[in-house]
Amino acid sequence: MSLAQRILQGEIRAAARLMRDVDDGIASATRELKELYPHTGKAYIIGVTGPPGAGKSTLTDKLIETYRSQGKTVAVVAVDPTSPFSGGAILGDRIRMNRHATDEGVFIRSLGTRGHLGGLSNSANDIIHIFDAMGWDVILVETVGVGQDEVEIVRTAHTSVVVMVPGLGDEIQAIKAGILEIGDVFTVNKADRPDADRTARELETMIAMVMRPESDWTPPVVKSVAQKVEGVADLVARIDDHHRYLVNSGKMHQHEKFYSAQRFADLLKERLFAEVHQCLSDNGRLSETVDAIARRELDPYTAVETILDDALQCAMRKNRLT
Amino acid sequence: MSLAQRILQGEIRAAARLMRDVDDGIASATRELKELYPHTGKAYIIGVTGPPGAGKSTLTDKLIETYRSQGKTVAVVAVDPTSPFSGGAILGDRIRMNRHATDEGVFIRSLGTRGHLGGLSNSANDIIHIFDAMGWDVILVETVGVGQDEVEIVRTAHTSVVVMVPGLGDEIQAIKAGILEIGDVFTVNKADRPDADRTARELETMIAMVMRPESDWTPPVVKSVAQKVEGVADLVARIDDHHRYLVNSGKMHQHEKFYSAQRFADLLKERLFAEVHQCLSDNGRLSETVDAIARRELDPYTAVETILDDALQCAMRKNRLT
Repeated sequence: MSLAQRILQGEIRAAARLMRDVDDGIASATRELKELYPHTGKAYIIGVTGPPGAGKSTLTDKLIETYRSQGKTVAVVAVDPTSPFSGGAILGDRIRMNRHATDEGVFIRSLGTRGHLGGLSNSANDIIHIFDAMGWDVILVETVGVGQDEVEIVRTAHTSVVVMVPGLGDEIQAIKAGILEIGDVFTVNKADRPDADRTARELETMIAMVMRPESDWTPPVVKSVAQKVEGVADLVARIDDHHRYLVNSGKMHQHEKFYSAQRFADLLKERLFAEVHQCLSDNGRLSETVDAIARRELDPYTAVETILDDALQCAMRKNRLT
Repeated sequence: MSLAQRILQGEIRAAARLMRDVDDGIASATRELKELYPHTGKAYIIGVTGPPGAGKSTLTDKLIETYRSQGKTVAVVAVDPTSPFSGGAILGDRIRMNRHATDEGVFIRSLGTRGHLGGLSNSANDIIHIFDAMGWDVILVETVGVGQDEVEIVRTAHTSVVVMVPGLGDEIQAIKAGILEIGDVFTVNKADRPDADRTARELETMIAMVMRPESDWTPPVVKSVAQKVEGVADLVARIDDHHRYLVNSGKMHQHEKFYSAQRFADLLKERLFAEVHQCLSDNGRLSETVDAIARRELDPYTAVETILDDALQCAMRKNRLT
C-alpha cells in the first residue's frame, strides 16, 4: 500500500512520515502528494494570527476544545516564524501537545522556518494538503503574522482570525492597513484588561474605513479572554457566519481559485529556479558570473539580463531529457 | 544629471527618490542601480537582530551615537517584519528619526513588508546598495530576525549582532541552532535584570557547542544596558574585532562572493518567474491550468511538470524579442 493510501485510511503515522519526507525534500513525496490531491478541498481552513503576546496559542487551544465538543476533528499547523528565537513557541507546542495527546481527534504539527527547501509557504501548504486529504474537518493555521511568507500563509485560510490585545493606545492608529485587509474576524483578546472596549471600538472604526472591493462582509470584532474561555463561543459563531457568507456569496469557489493559483505559482517559481540554477551551475556560468559581480566588473541586474536566454535554453534542453 | 550621479554626489533627496522608485517597481530604477553598482562594496554592513522586546531599537540608537562620535556616517535600514502589526515599530522609528533629524551623518530608512514586488529581501538589498554607493561608512540593518526573508537579510551583513535578554530561563535550552549560527557577536541586553550573568554563560556554552566549519571565530557574548549606554563601547569593540578577523582571514572576500551569489540568485528567481508567469498569462494557459487545479482535475505538481516546457519556450521567445 502506498503512503498516500495509508494516509487516506486515516493512518496518522503515515501522515507524519510524509510530512517528514516533504520537509526533507525526498523526491517520492511529490508522487504521494499527487495521489492525495483529488481528495483535498473538504477541510475548513482557519488562520489564527496576531502579534507576539496576544495569546494566540491559548486561543487556538480553546478553539480546538470548542470544535472537538462539536464532534469535529481538528488539525493544527503551527507555523513558527519566531524561530530562530522559537524557545517559547516550542515549549508552548509541547504543552498543547500534551493536553491533547490522548485525543485522536487532534493532530498538531509545528513548522520551523529552517530547512524548508521550497520555502516556508510551500511546506505549510503541503502539510495543509495532507491534513485536508486525510479528512480532518477543521485545520487551524497559527502564525505570528509577521514576515512576508507568513502573511502569504494566512491568505490561504478560508477565514482569517486576527488576534489583538487592548491598550495598544495611540499605536493602533499607526497600524498599517495590511492587518485590516487580512482579517475576516477580529478578536480583542485579554479583554479583561482595561481599554478593551476602546480598542474594540477603534478597531471597528478602522475596519469600516477599509475599502473592500467586491465584498459585502464587514469583519466583526469579538472580545475574548481565552484563558477563561470567555468569548470563544462567540468567536466560533462569527467564524461560522463567515463560512456561511463564503458559501452563499459564491466566494468559496473564488477562494478555491485564488488558492489554486497561488499554489501553482509557488511551485512553478520553485521549479523554474531549481532547473535554471542547476543548469548554470553545471555549465560553469554561475560561478564565473558571481565572480564578476563580486569583483564589481558586472552588476547583478545586467548579469541576469545577459544570462537569461542561455539559462532558459539550457533549462529547456535539460527538462526535455528528463 | 542622472539620479545615480546625484546620489554619488551625496544628495539625500535623490537617494530617497530612488528608494521610492525601487519600492514602486519603476522600470528606470534598475538603470540607476546599475550605474551605482561599481561604487558599492565600501560600507561596513552590520545586522542587528533579536526577538521583540529585546531592545534592538534602543541599541541601534546607541550604536549610531557611538559610530557618529568616531566620525563615521551611519545609515540605517529598519526592516519592519512586524508589519502588518507594526504600530510600535513605526512610532519607534519616528522617535529615532527625530533624535537624529538634524544630523546629516545619519539616514534612517524604514521598510515595511508590503508592496515589495520583488520580495522583501530584494528591496532591502537595493536600499543597502544605494546607501553603499553613496558612501555611508556604516550601514546598520535592524530586523526582528523572524521569518525566512528576514533571516536571509541578516545573512547579508558583514557582522551580525544578535540581541538577547536575561531570564529566558529554561527556554534558552530550546532555542534552535539557527540563532547561534546567525550571530557573529551576541549581546545580552537589559543586563541590569536578574539572571544576566547566567544567560550570558548559557549562551557561551551553547555557542561553544555549535560546529563552525572553516571558521576560527568564536562569537563573543557582551552584556549591555542600551538604555544607560552601558556595554555599548564593548559591543562596538567586538564588532571591530570581527571586522578585523574577516579582513585578516580572507573571509571578507568570501563574504563578498557569498553575497554576490545570493543577490544574483534572488534577482534571477524574480525575473524568471515574472517572464514565465507573463507568458502563461498571455497565452491563456495560466487560467485554464488554475481552473483545472481548482476543480481537482489536475494536481498542482503535475501541472507544473506539464507546463514547464511550454513555459520555458515561451519565455525564451519573449525575451529574445525585447
